[in-house]
Amino acid sequence: MDITALTRRRMLQVGGGGGAASLAVMAGGRAFAQSRGVSVEGQPLPEGVNFPETPPRQRRADSVGIAVVGLGDYALNQMMPRFDQAERVHVAALVSGNRDKLRRVGEAYRVPIGSRYTYDTFDQIAQNDGVDAVYIVLPSGLHAEWTERAFAAGKHVLCEKPMALNPAECERMIAAGRRAGRKLMIAYRVHFEPHNVRAMELMREGAVGDLRALRAEQANVFERTTPSENWRLNSALAGESPLEDLGIYGLQAALYLSGEMPESISAQSFRPAGDPRFAQIAASMSSQLRFPSGAIAQLATSYDSLGNNFVDAHGTKGAILLDPATSYSGQTLKVDGGEGRPPRMLTPGDPEQQFAGELDHFASAIRDDSKIIVPGEMGLRDVRLITAINLSARERQTVRLNSDGTVRG
Amino acid sequence: MDITALTRRRMLQVGGGGGAASLAVMAGGRAFAQSRGVSVEGQPLPEGVNFPETPPRQRRADSVGIAVVGLGDYALNQMMPRFDQAERVHVAALVSGNRDKLRRVGEAYRVPIGSRYTYDTFDQIAQNDGVDAVYIVLPSGLHAEWTERAFAAGKHVLCEKPMALNPAECERMIAAGRRAGRKLMIAYRVHFEPHNVRAMELMREGAVGDLRALRAEQANVFERTTPSENWRLNSALAGESPLEDLGIYGLQAALYLSGEMPESISAQSFRPAGDPRFAQIAASMSSQLRFPSGAIAQLATSYDSLGNNFVDAHGTKGAILLDPATSYSGQTLKVDGGEGRPPRMLTPGDPEQQFAGELDHFASAIRDDSKIIVPGEMGLRDVRLITAINLSARERQTVRLNSDGTVRG
Repeated sequence: MDITALTRRRMLQVGGGGGAASLAVMAGGRAFAQSRGVSVEGQPLPEGVNFPETPPRQRRADSVGIAVVGLGDYALNQMMPRFDQAERVHVAALVSGNRDKLRRVGEAYRVPIGSRYTYDTFDQIAQNDGVDAVYIVLPSGLHAEWTERAFAAGKHVLCEKPMALNPAECERMIAAGRRAGRKLMIAYRVHFEPHNVRAMELMREGAVGDLRALRAEQANVFERTTPSENWRLNSALAGESPLEDLGIYGLQAALYLSGEMPESISAQSFRPAGDPRFAQIAASMSSQLRFPSGAIAQLATSYDSLGNNFVDAHGTKGAILLDPATSYSGQTLKVDGGEGRPPRMLTPGDPEQQFAGELDHFASAIRDDSKIIVPGEMGLRDVRLITAINLSARERQTVRLNSDGTVRG
Repeated sequence: MDITALTRRRMLQVGGGGGAASLAVMAGGRAFAQSRGVSVEGQPLPEGVNFPETPPRQRRADSVGIAVVGLGDYALNQMMPRFDQAERVHVAALVSGNRDKLRRVGEAYRVPIGSRYTYDTFDQIAQNDGVDAVYIVLPSGLHAEWTERAFAAGKHVLCEKPMALNPAECERMIAAGRRAGRKLMIAYRVHFEPHNVRAMELMREGAVGDLRALRAEQANVFERTTPSENWRLNSALAGESPLEDLGIYGLQAALYLSGEMPESISAQSFRPAGDPRFAQIAASMSSQLRFPSGAIAQLATSYDSLGNNFVDAHGTKGAILLDPATSYSGQTLKVDGGEGRPPRMLTPGDPEQQFAGELDHFASAIRDDSKIIVPGEMGLRDVRLITAINLSARERQTVRLNSDGTVRG
């Protein structure tokens, strides 16, 4: 059996960091192809992790205890340090295949030994009453299976994007949550980022008039690496192109800025011949989405094009530009009101609030039964659209869609 | 017979001013539909025309005498004032249907009474030895017919873009020029604009590495008007969408920056229901072009979206942004060399050189038999691509192309 280490390199902060984890997976062999690999082996601690210098703050009585599944770069460097900025969450357990890392991270975050699990012992988490919920921050291809295992253990689930690699997996995840009577939220952090939230409001308020053209690109250049070294290049774990993990931000933006679902999609993928990085997935995916209003979204994403992360909406009366749009920090929001007036730069808040905002939204859903604005159904919707884009690119034809994102017969 | 005055409003300077003319055309009736209207009636002098305050400078012995056909806003406000910036051209004759305007413009540019023609007397220009060439600056739908008449009169032709509204017309124009043994150049002024010329050089030098994504939008919002009031909204004169007159700049840029011809096209047009402006043509056209190298161009153009005129090329190692890209003046060129270095702004020259550069290029072709870099064959190529984009939008399907831009059977 071919167990190959996956190393995770630090990516440009262009918003592609969600869903990261350090795991070794079975990258070849029949068993892997059939089950999409559960066999996981811990990776060393990523370089450059800053552990908290002070103990976690006093937690509220109703704080939600979360088990973090996958201790990779995004978990350790982005999400976990932000738990203390949220009101009602705390790190209650850790799951990793590397016992040394488990110990070091456990000590840094004051997670008791009894709440540190390996992938082999994960199912025992069902007996841990301190764990209310599980945060799945594994490679995309593993989301479905570990979400189902978390629900089987009676926990709520916060799952990284993309929800999964095909609609059937998403439907299984939603069904598992319903059976368990537990919440399922997709970790779409940008819905809690002030510049994006303000852009959504501006669009609803008609700031651009009638929307005509939406453009987005999320791109970066991957270092020389291979599908066995980096899960994002591995089709079983990452899907068919950068769209699943990176371009999904632009796709999401097209939906939350337009407030519509596309009625047709034309897509083109590209794979540079002979490039070992792109032996399994396409390097780029470009798509054109037509909305019922007539607005057109032109989206591009690539792992082989200069770092770029913008979202741009033009309408009959104005324009909105987010650049960078979906990064961890540094967002800018420019609004052009037309009529020759100079564009305005808006600063609606600190972009880094997005992490805590996401966590507290999840906590409220669990504690107050409040509505999740980024539920599993949204994850399913987006995976349907990704599937349609992949289909259009593969068949080199325009694909027509039903209003739920399924492909029209 | 329904003779309707076409008024030409001053457009936002987003590069859509080429090919303008003040004409009244038969906008309805069978005669018009059959012949696409030759019957023309002079329009008043556009508002805000600045005539030259000094007489034309001493002309060189080999200066090319040009008859300007169509005295609209673009001819009077952009091109004619730039003749004196060129080395080897002069305004030798004028053609207009409005005798008062003919007199006033003729006096301002010192064009003798005997060299002022109406559309009815145009064919007499054959006997005017002071006229070497004809500059066709009429609505697009009239280019073919007046180009053929100019060749029949034995003159060289500089014809505004788009060359014509379908490939058959372009082929007739090219054949007429060959029969007459006269030059045919398309007035693609941007090929003489220093920022665009520098961008072409940078692309050839590999400044972006391997090209991955090209984006362009050329858009503006038309005032409330109708197809009978404005030729650009009249399908017989303007084609099927803003692509023919305005979006052609982005299409051209995709070709001259990539150095390639697309192998397939997916396009989407949009016409807002009940809007009297868009009774005949689409308001917007969005297209996605796939090049053999794998680069994708995403183009958008609209007469109903906030003023926008940019061209953006991203590759594996860098990016180039022209914004505005194809306007009469004000171009900026930003080059991002990647690797975290700040982008550089380049100032390769005065954008307003483009008009004189275009005129002198034409003069050289006539006097020195030098090669035309924007010949009728390029105009035909682009009209083929416009035809393919229109076809894709109409049929809502991806269209595959031969390397000459014709649609693959």
